[in-house]
Amino acid sequence: MDQLKPNSANSSPLTPLTFLDRAGITYGDSTSVIYGRKSYTWTQTNRRCLQLASSLSSIGIGRGHVVSVLSSNNLATYELHFAVPMSGATLNNLNLRLDHRTLSLLLRHSESKLLFVHTLSQSLIHKALSLFPPNTPLPKLVLITDDTVASHQMKTPLTNHVTVTETETETEAKTVTTLDFIDTYEGLIAKGDPTFKWVKPNSEWDPITLNYTSGTTSSPKGVVHCHRGTFIMALDTLVDWCVPKNAVYLWTLPMFHSNGWSFPWGIAAVGGTNVCSRKIDAPTIYRLIESHGVTHMCAAPVVLNMLTSFGRTEPLRKQVHVLTGGSPPPAGILKRAERMGFVVSHGYGMTETCGVVLSCAWKREWDLFSAAERARMKARQGVRTAAATAEVDVVDLKWGVSVKRDGLTQGEIVVRGACVMLGYFKDEEATSKCIKNGWLHTGDVAVVHEDGYIEIKDRLKDVIISGGENLSSVEVEAMLYTHPAVSDVAVVARPDEFWGETPCAFVKLKGRLERRPSEEEMVEFCRERLPHFMVPKTVVFRDELPRTSTGKVQKYVLRMVARAMGSLPLPLPSPSPSPPPPPIITPSSRM
Amino acid sequence: MDQLKPNSANSSPLTPLTFLDRAGITYGDSTSVIYGRKSYTWTQTNRRCLQLASSLSSIGIGRGHVVSVLSSNNLATYELHFAVPMSGATLNNLNLRLDHRTLSLLLRHSESKLLFVHTLSQSLIHKALSLFPPNTPLPKLVLITDDTVASHQMKTPLTNHVTVTETETETEAKTVTTLDFIDTYEGLIAKGDPTFKWVKPNSEWDPITLNYTSGTTSSPKGVVHCHRGTFIMALDTLVDWCVPKNAVYLWTLPMFHSNGWSFPWGIAAVGGTNVCSRKIDAPTIYRLIESHGVTHMCAAPVVLNMLTSFGRTEPLRKQVHVLTGGSPPPAGILKRAERMGFVVSHGYGMTETCGVVLSCAWKREWDLFSAAERARMKARQGVRTAAATAEVDVVDLKWGVSVKRDGLTQGEIVVRGACVMLGYFKDEEATSKCIKNGWLHTGDVAVVHEDGYIEIKDRLKDVIISGGENLSSVEVEAMLYTHPAVSDVAVVARPDEFWGETPCAFVKLKGRLERRPSEEEMVEFCRERLPHFMVPKTVVFRDELPRTSTGKVQKYVLRMVARAMGSLPLPLPSPSPSPPPPPIITPSSRM
Repeated sequence: MDQLKPNSANSSPLTPLTFLDRAGITYGDSTSVIYGRKSYTWTQTNRRCLQLASSLSSIGIGRGHVVSVLSSNNLATYELHFAVPMSGATLNNLNLRLDHRTLSLLLRHSESKLLFVHTLSQSLIHKALSLFPPNTPLPKLVLITDDTVASHQMKTPLTNHVTVTETETETEAKTVTTLDFIDTYEGLIAKGDPTFKWVKPNSEWDPITLNYTSGTTSSPKGVVHCHRGTFIMALDTLVDWCVPKNAVYLWTLPMFHSNGWSFPWGIAAVGGTNVCSRKIDAPTIYRLIESHGVTHMCAAPVVLNMLTSFGRTEPLRKQVHVLTGGSPPPAGILKRAERMGFVVSHGYGMTETCGVVLSCAWKREWDLFSAAERARMKARQGVRTAAATAEVDVVDLKWGVSVKRDGLTQGEIVVRGACVMLGYFKDEEATSKCIKNGWLHTGDVAVVHEDGYIEIKDRLKDVIISGGENLSSVEVEAMLYTHPAVSDVAVVARPDEFWGETPCAFVKLKGRLERRPSEEEMVEFCRERLPHFMVPKTVVFRDELPRTSTGKVQKYVLRMVARAMGSLPLPLPSPSPSPPPPPIITPSSRM
Repeated sequence: MDQLKPNSANSSPLTPLTFLDRAGITYGDSTSVIYGRKSYTWTQTNRRCLQLASSLSSIGIGRGHVVSVLSSNNLATYELHFAVPMSGATLNNLNLRLDHRTLSLLLRHSESKLLFVHTLSQSLIHKALSLFPPNTPLPKLVLITDDTVASHQMKTPLTNHVTVTETETETEAKTVTTLDFIDTYEGLIAKGDPTFKWVKPNSEWDPITLNYTSGTTSSPKGVVHCHRGTFIMALDTLVDWCVPKNAVYLWTLPMFHSNGWSFPWGIAAVGGTNVCSRKIDAPTIYRLIESHGVTHMCAAPVVLNMLTSFGRTEPLRKQVHVLTGGSPPPAGILKRAERMGFVVSHGYGMTETCGVVLSCAWKREWDLFSAAERARMKARQGVRTAAATAEVDVVDLKWGVSVKRDGLTQGEIVVRGACVMLGYFKDEEATSKCIKNGWLHTGDVAVVHEDGYIEIKDRLKDVIISGGENLSSVEVEAMLYTHPAVSDVAVVARPDEFWGETPCAFVKLKGRLERRPSEEEMVEFCRERLPHFMVPKTVVFRDELPRTSTGKVQKYVLRMVARAMGSLPLPLPSPSPSPPPPPIITPSSRM
């Protein structure tokens, strides 16, 4: 029985690229991508990707090279998810919200050979490239325009050394920039060969994408995923979310976020329609949903919030399935969203897992719960997905053993399975810190409920240990959010000579308040609603909280502020209730 | 970029067994399997499989061993798809329709260590084992009963050396048989440890199943599939057929047919409900559909025929999705089935591909076609599935190059991808005949239509070459089936001194005909409806056509009969229309 080995017919490398040529046959006449007034069929998308891959190949792009793109969700960005790896190269989809310094660093770190730049990002890239040290090779540049007329139909195609005047207001710089473009995006496609035999990976472990994480707490790291991982992740997400054939998928999630959670490939597998838009606001989203019959969309809670606080009361004509992640959808938003006709699923993942690896699989019996209870169930990150996540566990930080399924004991979420990245590009140390003992360490602190569902309580570094008790800053924040005057909040640890640490809350109040609450009132508010050890001992009002380009609060900045405050004065002796004796805080007492 | 290799967190072997423990958490309280009045939840099924795997392990079953089962679709057969590989062993699900001689041969060929036997098959197995030569070790035996009371709840559990009296009429033998059972199925489960750490495959290429093909045209061959192949196939089929979470799946397809097209595992991945039944007839199927709210079922065209000719006119209360394969669903049956509320999809696969690898993906625009035209489209085998079939081609038999997409040029279907078997067990020669040059050769002859859809025209050996023209016996048969007096038909090649070969039709007429047509009338009927070269020159009436245990016509038997007839007399010279000069028939002229 053991003599049968992989053979020539069953060992083709797994790759999501094969979804495209099949879509070209099976769904040939169906609409593949829509962007503004422009749209293509799957036959056309397949053909365009082959042409682009052939052009990339003919200008020397191939295996081992990195090709970057800086553009919002549009036809080009979608096609590049296929065309770049079809040339053998690795796609690096850059975060549009980064500044030119970071972009410059990433383009050098990735050793990018070619960079696709959208018209609106030219000035940004000009500044980024100008930071390249002398003798450092610049990437070749290709211009992406939103023109509805392809450049090969123009009389004077855009070629080398083009001077472009910015007309849109994306960046503050309004200067004329000069960039050396080797061609336009459409120019490359027009020159390509539609019969090109695309470059198949030598192994399914070959890299397909490189994504730099936002780096809330540390310097950016380049996550590399392989063909096998993205293939399985794409299928897994389709099964987990029950995405049917011919689904109409609206892109509000930027494709540069963890490869759009693998949907660029997944939607090709089911012959769906990708609806892209540069503008993501409530009126645009509602318009696209109704005009294209959108059935599915991924959306951060902030987008759901935008949609439900827009003032529209008329429910959707047809239900729209929404997959949300990043942070748990708040109860109020969930309730309003469901009333509008959005069917919200909650998932959890990170760039290192290429998309959703835990999903809050809904149980029929929960339908009978109250809205608040339903929201509480839905806020849990859930259980591992069927295929991409072979195993998931929540482990004690000291001993690495599974925590109890009691909904109380906290530990770190660890994951293994095909979803896990190959590693960080050119960073063995960071890779081996993150991937060790057969697990990916997520840095997310969670509990496991009795029913096996996992719920995140904190980021590893956001755990506050006060009087020997672990407390979740997320829970304190959630309580503060219920205060009617609070607009934004972040809670971090402040060092304390007595308690070890105490919670310190940074609060942004709403504008136009008749009366602004005092710090003491905020503490009192918490004291009435939280266990004593969880009540912030310090409240700091701020006009704005520091956030990363992807919207995450930069807690490490606030932690530095809190550290600089030093300890609160030691409490005066009081007869009752007496504080417990000061605990000995050592690393081993954390969990 | 090439320095990142698979790591300890992302290289867990792919295996469909992981679907089960997830179902135990995610769908713990949902019904997993129903059989008669007995049913389990996913928590119970997970627990039972762990217990059974642990018992298998404790009696010495493990890696490299084959464990066989001879039973219809029921709780045990379902669970064995998980429990056997969870012990490290390979599952061999035997075809219930085989005779004792074949079963004896297969049990010896597979070197089966353990055999699960259903109560009703004891006599058959007794006869099969009695054919074992002396000194050939017998498999250990475990008895599967349909009792609703588990044996560990019985006062006198069934143990070794049990004498059983057959009370049901499955086999003609009515004798008392004596078999040495080491335990009952439920006994093994009761003894097992639910905390057992199941045996993970060392590699995803480790074998998981062994299936003997029915052997229409040759001796039975043991198809071995691996964990990786079944994992990807299970996911692929879910995506291709859009099987949602909590689907209710009715088992009319025997699980011993190509592992139930991978659905034993797939239904666990979506937390669906498996409805099993020993009896498969129209009243039972309709009753199960209505009482359990069945949403999906796989069914051979003969089952569809049974359901639509049952005399029921009332449509189903809820649509049922039916996946059919084996042979194209005839237009009349399709029309009636659709009217009843069955949504029929057509797929193609073979044991060597572990399930459906081509599926006739439906295009929206075909909805507007006439019923006849819709049936014609649906009769095509279609296009490759998204994930398990990396590539499919139809290649010229001589040169191995792709045939034209003209709907006319015939070639052999070849397949590559994760769906393809590891090979035939202990048969390198057969393996290398079937898997060569990187492709699995299916032996099925097909055309590719302009739209890329593949349509099977014949089995390779059923191609008839007459006057240098290839003709499809299937097409001649299809025409003869339209004759009102015809009940069954098979067309094979008869050798011919002039034409090379001529079509020879074996026809079974319907009973109770007022007048039986003559051979000449049958020929005349075809002449009016088929191109001249396709008209059978010989018609032979038979009371019954020879068929295999799985219902396929044994064309090789009929070919031998036709060969024995020898050539028809040479045609008399006629002024007009003159026959073409006799072609030179060589192997190279086949396609």
